Amino acid sequence: MLNYRKYKKVPVLNYPEREWPDKEIEQAPVWCSVDLRDGNQSLIEPMNVEEKMEMFQLLLKLGFKEIEIGFPAASQIEYDFLRELVDGDMIPDDVTVQVLTQCREHLIDKTFEAIQGIKNVIVHIYNSTSTLQRDVVFHMNREEIKQIAVDGTKMVKDRAKDFPGRIQLEYSPESFTGTEMDFAIDICNAVQDVWEPSGDNKLIFNLPATVEMNTPNVYADQIEWMHKHFKNRENIILSVHPHNDRGTGVAATELALLAGADRVEGTLFGNGERTGNVDILNIAYNMFSQGINPKLEIENINEIIEIYERCCKMSVDMRHPYAGKLVFTAFSGSHQDAINKGVRALRERSDGIWEVPYLPIDPADVGRKYEPVVRINSQSGKGGIAFVMDTMYGYQMPKAMHKEFADVIQRLSEVQGGEVDPQQIMDKFDEEYLSKKEPYEFIKVKVEDLNEKDSHIVLDYRYNGKDMHIEADGNGPIDAVKRAINSHMDLDVCIRNYSEHAMGSGSHARAAAYIQMRDNRTEKETFGVGVSSNITRASIRSFFSALNRLMR
Amino acid sequence: MLNYRKYKKVPVLNYPEREWPDKEIEQAPVWCSVDLRDGNQSLIEPMNVEEKMEMFQLLLKLGFKEIEIGFPAASQIEYDFLRELVDGDMIPDDVTVQVLTQCREHLIDKTFEAIQGIKNVIVHIYNSTSTLQRDVVFHMNREEIKQIAVDGTKMVKDRAKDFPGRIQLEYSPESFTGTEMDFAIDICNAVQDVWEPSGDNKLIFNLPATVEMNTPNVYADQIEWMHKHFKNRENIILSVHPHNDRGTGVAATELALLAGADRVEGTLFGNGERTGNVDILNIAYNMFSQGINPKLEIENINEIIEIYERCCKMSVDMRHPYAGKLVFTAFSGSHQDAINKGVRALRERSDGIWEVPYLPIDPADVGRKYEPVVRINSQSGKGGIAFVMDTMYGYQMPKAMHKEFADVIQRLSEVQGGEVDPQQIMDKFDEEYLSKKEPYEFIKVKVEDLNEKDSHIVLDYRYNGKDMHIEADGNGPIDAVKRAINSHMDLDVCIRNYSEHAMGSGSHARAAAYIQMRDNRTEKETFGVGVSSNITRASIRSFFSALNRLMR
Repeated sequence: MLNYRKYKKVPVLNYPEREWPDKEIEQAPVWCSVDLRDGNQSLIEPMNVEEKMEMFQLLLKLGFKEIEIGFPAASQIEYDFLRELVDGDMIPDDVTVQVLTQCREHLIDKTFEAIQGIKNVIVHIYNSTSTLQRDVVFHMNREEIKQIAVDGTKMVKDRAKDFPGRIQLEYSPESFTGTEMDFAIDICNAVQDVWEPSGDNKLIFNLPATVEMNTPNVYADQIEWMHKHFKNRENIILSVHPHNDRGTGVAATELALLAGADRVEGTLFGNGERTGNVDILNIAYNMFSQGINPKLEIENINEIIEIYERCCKMSVDMRHPYAGKLVFTAFSGSHQDAINKGVRALRERSDGIWEVPYLPIDPADVGRKYEPVVRINSQSGKGGIAFVMDTMYGYQMPKAMHKEFADVIQRLSEVQGGEVDPQQIMDKFDEEYLSKKEPYEFIKVKVEDLNEKDSHIVLDYRYNGKDMHIEADGNGPIDAVKRAINSHMDLDVCIRNYSEHAMGSGSHARAAAYIQMRDNRTEKETFGVGVSSNITRASIRSFFSALNRLMR
Repeated sequence: MLNYRKYKKVPVLNYPEREWPDKEIEQAPVWCSVDLRDGNQSLIEPMNVEEKMEMFQLLLKLGFKEIEIGFPAASQIEYDFLRELVDGDMIPDDVTVQVLTQCREHLIDKTFEAIQGIKNVIVHIYNSTSTLQRDVVFHMNREEIKQIAVDGTKMVKDRAKDFPGRIQLEYSPESFTGTEMDFAIDICNAVQDVWEPSGDNKLIFNLPATVEMNTPNVYADQIEWMHKHFKNRENIILSVHPHNDRGTGVAATELALLAGADRVEGTLFGNGERTGNVDILNIAYNMFSQGINPKLEIENINEIIEIYERCCKMSVDMRHPYAGKLVFTAFSGSHQDAINKGVRALRERSDGIWEVPYLPIDPADVGRKYEPVVRINSQSGKGGIAFVMDTMYGYQMPKAMHKEFADVIQRLSEVQGGEVDPQQIMDKFDEEYLSKKEPYEFIKVKVEDLNEKDSHIVLDYRYNGKDMHIEADGNGPIDAVKRAINSHMDLDVCIRNYSEHAMGSGSHARAAAYIQMRDNRTEKETFGVGVSSNITRASIRSFFSALNRLMR
């Protein structure tokens, strides 16, 4: 029996004046990556210097302009890494490096020692402000907790005066979500009074959901309340730093953006203590999928995944939005059919706006291939298989043929008990339609157009390995071949339908021909497929393909 | 450059009348597991019959009362599995089995054939209603789409009349989130008019976020709008079926519960097409962590993970809330320190309410062990190491000793370049404090209390392997030992501090003693630790432990 009585609800803010539910996200926030600090500290195996360097380069490439690189005063490794960045001149002028420190004099001194030579620095001070932490960790009252923040601010301000670069202050009331709103604003006001920010040198107030404590709308209420209660709001950058303990970190961040947040701290794929920080990529791709410029260069998701997994020794979940291996798949037959139709409709329209059922974004836009879009198993429908044959191999099977071939693949899937990959589908297509040479094998044909309506053919083929030669007339080459075979082999087949399309273009283009053939004696019907750079040969091959399928 | 201009914002509902942001989740919804249908169909390797059976048994054990077992009319495998459940009498009387079917006559007939002999069945019909699917997939107008639903309802009603068991209808306007609200309510009303539900036989309207299209507050608005606009709301069960394309499925579900939803369809760990269905376990544990009975028997998370990973051949993400391997860890030193203090405060209080910084729930409540709670790496603080030594091994080191031992572990971590596991910490503790016998080794002591203030001891020890024997007086055994050693070995050490505590209880209890020793000549200080069932021997061992550390 689950011991739920041991827990209590966290009080929510009573804030009916909220306006955020009427808003929509219109633009990207300022992104601050904390991969090298919060992300790194919570890895089973933290990054070594080379890996940190590669991660830093990746973050630059993705377009992050603010990067928290560590807590140099607390860790020699992070101190050394920062110095390597400075001494190697690796921090671009338009990138601001952020360093974390507690509000203690010797740590702040060490921090300023670490940042010597950097042009743009955010010094990020914090102390914990929640009722719980005040009670059980610090045994301090509000005034004492506030004094820590005020003293820290003074110490940074004092040292910033003589610093040759630009110092911005960031203050985090850590465990903000467990802090009373009036105390949160009180402590921020006190910091603001000391720092005296201006429009040119804004103060960053970072309001973390250090632990997610409630549904994400509650965080949004708290953020909007702060947003509305800050003094001189124009001098403040409202930053959020959500974690993901309840699995709603992305939502909490998005609602916080509606509620007035300007800036988001998070990590790639959500590394961070416990369940992690909020996943910046998830939010950025969400914006992208709504036509909003996320202001990150994240078009090559595969590269991001590769570097992340290698440096962090973590793996991206199979169902991670946008990055998961299974995300651009559709197993259900009706989904596959709808995707197929959606892509066709998209081609026919010319507005260029992506709207395809079950595929919120075009996989190609983030560097994913069409290849894994549709996976086929025993529960897949004919639409998915047709889609694979079309998008991957260029065969636009006639609609009436979809079921015939889908049945073939479904049997294959049931036999092997799992998923059939696209190459297996193509191999089966080849085996069933393209390369069958028993009992009939087409050798060559000579076509002579007698007049507008009549053709004469000279046909060479093999029957069970025996060379055959025949001449016949018909209203066109296929009709003539049909007549030739029917008379020569004493058959009674007819052509129910015929289609042909080009595959590729230019001098390498080939034609694919599809014939639907019926044996009038057995009433069996089947399709045949032929491919050739010569449209006549393609169609005669499709005739022989169907013939072999009927006769087996 | 990311091609964001290819996408457009999905229109949101203008609904300022919403009331859900003022609400809180008060109770668990009706849960419906779709693991065997939506979950299974999207596995790379779908479950075989034995695995399905094991999953079904797990779902029963977890307390699910509604379980969608498949689409029997579309898949022979699912048909056969359902018959096996019926013929094996494996469906408990209080469990309702749900079957999915499209609104087509032959499929509905086949569905009723499949459910023969079941006492309680939900027949779940659906058709796609979104603008996009109407346009590009079905090429039908609203009336034609509505007619599909109406016809399907009539067909189910007709066959339900003669069915010996209880039939409930569930209707899903699939792709609801892309459907105009007025059309969604119109089609639901039309279904309701045909079915004529009552308070005894409620109609389930299931409103899926087939594809997540917007921030979760928009889904909540849509759900509340429907909730307020249904006719005879008391005859309706409002069900939601959220997917996770934007990574906000859990949030969307929680906000939908605020907005009036009664029932949630989802899966364990969020299997399902693409990014998956909503993860029911995540929501249920969220409720649990707030003191709400989730009405699922999910106290043994390890068993759920084990069966899930084996049957579905999927893995649970390292940072999955509640189930991830890293979730009950804390790498940061200040986090570890706060957890340590929080657990102590909890022990001292007696209200039984869990409130510990950075640990939303007690890992033990879901069958997770304390063992992985704190992982130690080079960036961990002294608090975490002290916590491990206390909770796992019972050593309550004096506060002044934390840093000394933390430095030892930090060096170890830096040398091996990764995480130090608790056993390694204990091994190092043993090596450093408990088992060092060079140069001094304590052999035995005889203590004679001369009077209240004076003790006489006879001490046997070894120095560099050589047996030593000495007698001395002091105000107690430790003082006497100190005097004996100082005079015998020409040393000048003094005791700065001393503490001792019981480890375990009853006849197996032992004492752990800690001595802080100073060498007055070198001014070096260190701690020593001794353990024994005899408190005197424990303290003399701690003396020798410190002595050896000072002398090396």
